[in-house]
Amino acid sequence: MPNLVPPHGGGPLKPLLAADAEKADALAKAASLTKVPLSSRELSDLFMFGMGAYTPLDGFMDQSDWRGACVDMQLSNGLFWPIPITLSCSRDIADSIALGEEVALADEDGAVVGTLRVTEKYEIDRALECENVYRTTDEKHPGVQKVMDQGEINLAGPVVVLSEGHYPETYKGLYFRPEETRAMFEERGWSKVAAFQTRNPMHRSHEHLAKIAIEIGDGVLIHQVLGALKPGDIPADVRVKAIDVLVDNYFVDGTAVQAGYPIEMRYAGPREALLHALFRQNFGCSHLIVGRDHAGVGDYYGPFDAHHIFDTLKEGSLLTQPLKIDITFYCRKCDGMATGKTCPHGEEDRLNISGTRLREMFANHETVPAEFSRPEVVEVLQAYYDSLG
Amino acid sequence: MPNLVPPHGGGPLKPLLAADAEKADALAKAASLTKVPLSSRELSDLFMFGMGAYTPLDGFMDQSDWRGACVDMQLSNGLFWPIPITLSCSRDIADSIALGEEVALADEDGAVVGTLRVTEKYEIDRALECENVYRTTDEKHPGVQKVMDQGEINLAGPVVVLSEGHYPETYKGLYFRPEETRAMFEERGWSKVAAFQTRNPMHRSHEHLAKIAIEIGDGVLIHQVLGALKPGDIPADVRVKAIDVLVDNYFVDGTAVQAGYPIEMRYAGPREALLHALFRQNFGCSHLIVGRDHAGVGDYYGPFDAHHIFDTLKEGSLLTQPLKIDITFYCRKCDGMATGKTCPHGEEDRLNISGTRLREMFANHETVPAEFSRPEVVEVLQAYYDSLG
Repeated sequence: MPNLVPPHGGGPLKPLLAADAEKADALAKAASLTKVPLSSRELSDLFMFGMGAYTPLDGFMDQSDWRGACVDMQLSNGLFWPIPITLSCSRDIADSIALGEEVALADEDGAVVGTLRVTEKYEIDRALECENVYRTTDEKHPGVQKVMDQGEINLAGPVVVLSEGHYPETYKGLYFRPEETRAMFEERGWSKVAAFQTRNPMHRSHEHLAKIAIEIGDGVLIHQVLGALKPGDIPADVRVKAIDVLVDNYFVDGTAVQAGYPIEMRYAGPREALLHALFRQNFGCSHLIVGRDHAGVGDYYGPFDAHHIFDTLKEGSLLTQPLKIDITFYCRKCDGMATGKTCPHGEEDRLNISGTRLREMFANHETVPAEFSRPEVVEVLQAYYDSLG
Repeated sequence: MPNLVPPHGGGPLKPLLAADAEKADALAKAASLTKVPLSSRELSDLFMFGMGAYTPLDGFMDQSDWRGACVDMQLSNGLFWPIPITLSCSRDIADSIALGEEVALADEDGAVVGTLRVTEKYEIDRALECENVYRTTDEKHPGVQKVMDQGEINLAGPVVVLSEGHYPETYKGLYFRPEETRAMFEERGWSKVAAFQTRNPMHRSHEHLAKIAIEIGDGVLIHQVLGALKPGDIPADVRVKAIDVLVDNYFVDGTAVQAGYPIEMRYAGPREALLHALFRQNFGCSHLIVGRDHAGVGDYYGPFDAHHIFDTLKEGSLLTQPLKIDITFYCRKCDGMATGKTCPHGEEDRLNISGTRLREMFANHETVPAEFSRPEVVEVLQAYYDSLG
């Protein structure tokens, strides 16, 4: 049987979550340590460390790795890494910590979620990070904003993760760690697996993307971004139900798996597409579906920048390959689903419904066309909108 | 710019067609040589040599290469080759030829089409060839029949091809040699090109196959088997016109190219799928679409044998990869085109029209459903059937 793609770096998965037996002791000990508060992005990165999604990193990056990730997407040991994973704190907290000291990492409520042995304290050039990673220093960009708002000093060092937060409980049956998705793929005999990244219910255009991946591989991982919702977002349980009815009614048994993971989006467009592919390698996915303007926001990136960046990588940087697909839609003249690459017809033949218009249709109980969304999916979403009162 | 896949064997293309300037002299000289008549299969192989489709072979195989191709798909120099390419003659003719002698190769009308310098005369174990290549010795199998009917002695040696027969004239604008398809791909900036093999007009199921290939690559080569027609086959000019209206109306400009090539099908199923991939590599195609029962006949092969055989090859045997796709059809519940891998619904929801039934529909001027074939294609075919009177 062919094997799954190996974890990034070629070694074993490296989940940094402490074993259950050690957690109570570690938490008790952490009570006396200096507390470093985590931002929501830093906390989400800690959870990614915990589950092994950032294999083979040991913890938050030092200055040399930070610079390498920013400038040439390469750590000081030569490993490919396209976005810095860093932790910051105020100058006051940093001054109170000695090198070699172990500190406690605290979530937004002050609860200890992990520990860090501080190996380096350093200042960064924020503009350099933003220009390289986000291609802009515009503070209206939500990713840039978080870099600009972060503490003055970065702390580096290996981490031990002591909590996965509410995720395992809230997203039971959905929150799967890389070793778990790998076991699921192996159980199904899959080796060529594409990840489909989503934070929304799946309509027919998303079904089409997933089915292209199924045609050329063994199966698709419908991989949901969990975490903080934006206003108007569909809650995860409704989203899961809407995806379940789609898969149950329109996918061949055993060709799709749902899972979720705790990252906070940076909206870094092309660089983030690379990070998405990198950690999908850890989840066991040989491919990542990269659509138009993947992980983009506003007009900061060209629609295919996230496709092109994969062509610039040195051979062997990433084993997980992009499955580059243009915008998808129903076309009346094609009499079916198509993409910008397979449909020669005009906008007037294509069925496009914006998110805003779709919410309006649900609010007014208008009929959502079956060419846009499967009736079973519409029914789940209509019930949700109705429940909002 | 990424490159096209290199020719088989890693060297340059090796078309064995004599230069125009040399043909007249060579033909005059050949008049005095012993004539060896070619069967239709041998003639089609000679044309394949001529255009460079069988690169890097120099001519018809000797006994060692014949055995290697049959038994372990490997020539004596280690090169992957899945089907023997051999020439036979009667014992009388063979006895009249000395080793090292040059002989003339004649088509079914006795016209000289090439020469062969005989390096070896040998007898083969026909059952061994049939069992290995065709997986059967049943003489009702059309490929087996040709092996059983061939002359007693095989002649090996390098060939010079002096004619491409009627192909360049009859199929002007369609008959493209490997160096020509490569130039066409390069002109379009393609590197990831899938070949779609067909000997029929394209209905929506074939369009679906081609579009899956376009989604994941740069374009598709719609590659027609030219040569002898079976009763009921659509003539090439009508087929080309039917494919042209499909491409013009339903494909994005610059994503599909039509071409034809002169092989005679052996119907060797999985082994022939490998040969199809091998010479597609010479044409510059990185992929070959391999559907259900590719190159099969009757019930000699399982529907996915031609998929599975690719998994048994030693790494590096072939650079051109199979794009394995299940049976394709329109499904009412899916409300679109689908395959056995993406549609979970039953036969009762799927639109299937047999070739026999389709001909009957044209004969009776019944409406062919637009879900089965594009109206523009139906119009071309209806006009052809009407012209038969």
